[in-house]
Amino acid sequence: MKDWAGAAPDETSAPRRRGRRPGGGDTRAALLDAARAVFAERGYDGATVRAIAERAGVDPAMVNHWFGGKEPLFVAALDLPVDPATALNEVLPGDPEHLAERILSRFLQTWDATGAAQLSTLIQSIASHDAAAGLLREFITRVLVVKVLAAVAPDRPELRATLCGTQMFGLAFVRYVLKVEPLASADHETIIAAVAPNLQRYLTGPLP
Amino acid sequence: MKDWAGAAPDETSAPRRRGRRPGGGDTRAALLDAARAVFAERGYDGATVRAIAERAGVDPAMVNHWFGGKEPLFVAALDLPVDPATALNEVLPGDPEHLAERILSRFLQTWDATGAAQLSTLIQSIASHDAAAGLLREFITRVLVVKVLAAVAPDRPELRATLCGTQMFGLAFVRYVLKVEPLASADHETIIAAVAPNLQRYLTGPLP
Repeated sequence: MKDWAGAAPDETSAPRRRGRRPGGGDTRAALLDAARAVFAERGYDGATVRAIAERAGVDPAMVNHWFGGKEPLFVAALDLPVDPATALNEVLPGDPEHLAERILSRFLQTWDATGAAQLSTLIQSIASHDAAAGLLREFITRVLVVKVLAAVAPDRPELRATLCGTQMFGLAFVRYVLKVEPLASADHETIIAAVAPNLQRYLTGPLP
Repeated sequence: MKDWAGAAPDETSAPRRRGRRPGGGDTRAALLDAARAVFAERGYDGATVRAIAERAGVDPAMVNHWFGGKEPLFVAALDLPVDPATALNEVLPGDPEHLAERILSRFLQTWDATGAAQLSTLIQSIASHDAAAGLLREFITRVLVVKVLAAVAPDRPELRATLCGTQMFGLAFVRYVLKVEPLASADHETIIAAVAPNLQRYLTGPLP
């Protein structure tokens, strides 16, 4: 994840660049910087393509040109190791009662490939900068609730999304950052068998 | 949690103070610094009272005088918001099948009183310094496994301890650091009802 210090409100409340920028990588990078600031300040719904483009000093059409829209720009601004939309489209099809196993399998593959150093940096960034935490909060609400839980959860999708978040963040933290054995070295099969029933209860089981 | 940079191996591989120090707060602070370095380097079992005292430049008897032994010194070095030994002694008595509810109730009270800022700092510290992560790893293994799970878990106490860790760290992270609603504002009764069955499965339920 990028350095989020630039998203502090007092530094970003006014556009940093007013002139039109040249095309190419500069425009893309400027849009990402601007998106992190505007999403953090206004949330997903409040952040308009126009406001992000204005902050970046480029034409609003550049958002579609470089990212294909507001949602892909949001995902790119999170700088996650894998595009969650792609990952979710892979795991959603199939029996909803085995969704937790598919989610865990997909996440473990991604996290193992990402490596402990990058995951530590990501968690550190989230813990130290409210802007990063705000973006991730939006991500949980928008992606987990709207795409996953609306499709499978019988009730209370927002509460279920946050409960799933506790299990998945905690698993990443203990396995990759704290590296506590035997979980740090356990194979995927063992972890999925141990954790999937709990995650599945948060997804589709009875809640109080 | 204190700044752990001082525990980097290249800075602490030799005693920093060789002379005997005067008594009082200086000795206590020197012992805490030395304990963080030596526990991080050697783990709980490998860290001797003698080595810690030597690193601090004080007599080994000062460890008993100021902390009452190696384990209380270890707990003090973690600088946690509450003494976990005291908290565990409060929750362990009672029906093992309701242990998760008692643990969650006790942790939520402590975390609410601690506040989001200190919890964020703690998690940031753990994510950024291997020494802090090493100490916390030791804590999970020593305290959770030995004191809690050995008393209630039918099998695989080490795996159960790490699974409990995933749920508790994740809950703290999402509620207090990410502050995702509705979990961030949920009352204790709601959280305990939602999370306790999952935590209880990790404590005493069937595992693969």
